[in-house]
Amino acid sequence: MTVSRFSTDVYRQRLQAAATAAGEAGLAGLIITPGYDLRYLTGSRAQTFERLTALVLPAAGEPTVVVPRLELASLKDSAVPELGVAVRDWVDGDDPYRLVVEALGGAPVATAVTDSMPALHLLPLAERLQRVPVLATEVLRRLRMIKDPAEIDALRKAGAAIDRVHARVPEFLAPGRTEADVAADIAEAIVAEGHSDVAFIIVGSGPNGADPHHECSNRELQVGDIVVVDIGGPYEPGYHSDCTRTYSIGEPDPEVARRYAVLQRAQRAAVAAVRPGVTAEQVDAVARDVLAEAGLADAFVHRTGHGIGLSVHEEPYIVAGNDLVLEEGMAFSVEPGIYFAGQWGARIEDIVIVTSDGAMPVNHRPHELVVVPATDRGADSAAG
Amino acid sequence: MTVSRFSTDVYRQRLQAAATAAGEAGLAGLIITPGYDLRYLTGSRAQTFERLTALVLPAAGEPTVVVPRLELASLKDSAVPELGVAVRDWVDGDDPYRLVVEALGGAPVATAVTDSMPALHLLPLAERLQRVPVLATEVLRRLRMIKDPAEIDALRKAGAAIDRVHARVPEFLAPGRTEADVAADIAEAIVAEGHSDVAFIIVGSGPNGADPHHECSNRELQVGDIVVVDIGGPYEPGYHSDCTRTYSIGEPDPEVARRYAVLQRAQRAAVAAVRPGVTAEQVDAVARDVLAEAGLADAFVHRTGHGIGLSVHEEPYIVAGNDLVLEEGMAFSVEPGIYFAGQWGARIEDIVIVTSDGAMPVNHRPHELVVVPATDRGADSAAG
Repeated sequence: MTVSRFSTDVYRQRLQAAATAAGEAGLAGLIITPGYDLRYLTGSRAQTFERLTALVLPAAGEPTVVVPRLELASLKDSAVPELGVAVRDWVDGDDPYRLVVEALGGAPVATAVTDSMPALHLLPLAERLQRVPVLATEVLRRLRMIKDPAEIDALRKAGAAIDRVHARVPEFLAPGRTEADVAADIAEAIVAEGHSDVAFIIVGSGPNGADPHHECSNRELQVGDIVVVDIGGPYEPGYHSDCTRTYSIGEPDPEVARRYAVLQRAQRAAVAAVRPGVTAEQVDAVARDVLAEAGLADAFVHRTGHGIGLSVHEEPYIVAGNDLVLEEGMAFSVEPGIYFAGQWGARIEDIVIVTSDGAMPVNHRPHELVVVPATDRGADSAAG
Repeated sequence: MTVSRFSTDVYRQRLQAAATAAGEAGLAGLIITPGYDLRYLTGSRAQTFERLTALVLPAAGEPTVVVPRLELASLKDSAVPELGVAVRDWVDGDDPYRLVVEALGGAPVATAVTDSMPALHLLPLAERLQRVPVLATEVLRRLRMIKDPAEIDALRKAGAAIDRVHARVPEFLAPGRTEADVAADIAEAIVAEGHSDVAFIIVGSGPNGADPHHECSNRELQVGDIVVVDIGGPYEPGYHSDCTRTYSIGEPDPEVARRYAVLQRAQRAAVAAVRPGVTAEQVDAVARDVLAEAGLADAFVHRTGHGIGLSVHEEPYIVAGNDLVLEEGMAFSVEPGIYFAGQWGARIEDIVIVTSDGAMPVNHRPHELVVVPATDRGADSAAG
C-alpha cells in the first residue's frame, strides 16, 4: 500500500486559511489532535491516544506541533517537515499541555479543538487554557466541506471504484450463501478495484435489511430475499466511497416493487433538489415528502445523507433542522431508505458533489432493484 | 471469530461498584460513551462517533443507556438487555444530550466522563450539564486497574499465546528477509496461536530498533543486526498480550552483549521491586537506576511500563511522577529499553500481575538476547 498526500503547498494554504478562519471567529487559535482535521491540515496520519500530539495553530503567528519524542517519526510522512512548522517534543514526565499554552502565548486564551479530541486531553487543556474551548468544527467546517479540485478528483475515483464493485455484487449473491460469504467476496473486490482498504460492508438480507446499520451475519440468502448492500472504502490519498444498491434474489413481490419505486422517486427527487442556495434540511424534506405522500413516512428512520471526504461521515449532514446553505464543492450522500421490521428494507445511495447549478453524482450504477436469478450461482446475472 | 463476554453478574457488580465510587467522589453520576470503560461496565463493543451512545450511571438510582435508534442492535451482544438497564433511544433531529441530563435528574449536575469521549459530545454535554465534567478515570481507575480472577486468567492465556509466538520468531528471522516479511509471518502466528486479532507488531532491525515506536519497514535484515520484536493482540474476551524480546542475527558484538546484559539486569530488578505498597515511580526508578549506574541513563527514553487489560495501554503507568501505590491484582508491563540512534536498540518486556507479596509474570520466554544463526533460514535455530 502506497500512502500518499497532496503537495506541501496544499497544506500550507489550508493552514493559512484555517488560521484566518480562527481569527475571524474571535479565537486565539486552534488545537488539533490526531484525526481527520490533522490529516486535512498537515497530511499527518498520526494516531496517538494517551500521549498528547497536537497541532497548535494560532490565528496570528507560526504554528507549532507538540509531539511525544517517541512519536517524532510519525510526522515524517506528513507535510510537517517540509512546511517548516516548529516541533516541540516532550518526554514522559513533562507537561505537554503547558507547551500548548506556550505556543498560544499564554492563558487565559480562547481556542477551538478538533471534534475527536478525547476528554483525556480536552479536560486538562481546558484547565490550563483557563477557558473551555469550543469545537473547531465551526471554524473548519467550510474549509473541510468545500472540496477542492484534487479532492473532487479523489472522490470521483473512489466512486468509480465502488461502482465496479457493485457491478460484481450479483455474482456474489445466491441462495444458500451467507451474508458473511458475500461480505468476504465484496471485501476482496473493494481492494481489487483500487481502494486502499475496506471501510464498511453491510449485507442486510431479508429481515436483516430492515436494520439500517446491520453489518452482516451468518444468515443464508433465500429466494425472495431483498438484500441491502452498502459498501465503501478509502481511496488514496484517503477519500472515501460509499454506495448502496438493493438486490432481489428472484423476482420481487409486487408490493415490494411498488414501495421500491417510491424510494427510487424519493432518491431522484432529493438529488434533483440539490443546488447552491438550497439548505441541507430542504434536501432531506424532499426525500421525506415523497415517501410520506405514499404512506411510507414511518419507514424512513434516518437522515437523508452525510458529507464525505477523509471521513466517511462528516459535514454537511442532510437532516431535518440543518439550515446550512449548500455551496458548490460540497460532497455528500443522498440515501433515503425504507425499513419494515422483521420483513425487509431497501436503500439507494449515491455520493453527489454540488456544482454551480445542481448535483454531480460520483456513482453511476442504475438505481433499479437489481434482480439476481434465484436458481443458480448467478455468475451471469444481469446487474441493474 | 467468536465474540465473548463475562457473565451478566460480573457487569452488574461492576456497575454497582462504579456507581458507589461515583458517589464517594461527590459526583451525581458517570457518562460513558463507547470505548473500554463502556466495555468494562457492560460488555458492549459499540463503536459510534457522531451519534451519541452513552451509558448514564447515576451514583444513586438506575442506569440508562442513551442510544441512537439506528444503533439499538449494537447493544444485543452486551449485557445491557439481561441487566434490565433502561434504554432511551433517539432519532436524528432529537437532542440526545437532553436525555443524558434527564437520566441524571436535571442540571446543574457534577459528572465524570470516560477518557475517550470526543470533544464533539463533551463540549455540548458540558453546556447542558452546566458544569464541566471531570475524568471518570479517577473514579474507575481502581476498578479497572485491579483485575479480578477472570481477568487475570484472560491475561495469562494471552501471555501464553504470545510466548508461543515468540518461540517461533527465530524461524522468521533471516538475512535478506524484510521487517515487513517477518511482521507478516508474526501476524499469522499471533492469530494461529489463539489471539482474536493482531494489535501491533514492531520489528525494529538495526538502526530501526533505536526508534522505540518504529513499526516495520522494507529494510532487509543483515548479519549483525539486533532486532527488537514487540508484539501483541487481544485474546477473548478482549484482554491483551504484549511482549518484547530482542534477537541478534548472528553473534552480537561484545559491546552490544555488555549493554544488553545491563538491560537484562534492569528489567529483572524492576520486576523484583514490584509488590503491594511500592509506588509506580519506584519501580520505574529501579530500572532507570540500574541503567544509569552503567552509564546508560540517556539510552532509556521512555517509561518503564503501562497497565494492560481491555486496552493495550491503560493505568497504572510505571513512570516517574506517578506515586500510585501498587495493589494486588494490578497488571502492567515492565519493559525498559536502550536505544542508540542510528545504530541499534533493545528492549525486554513482560506483563506482570501484582500478587500479595511480589509479581507474577504472565510471560515466560527466556530474557537472553536470542541469537539466530546468520547463515540460513534459521528454521532450526534455538530460541533463547
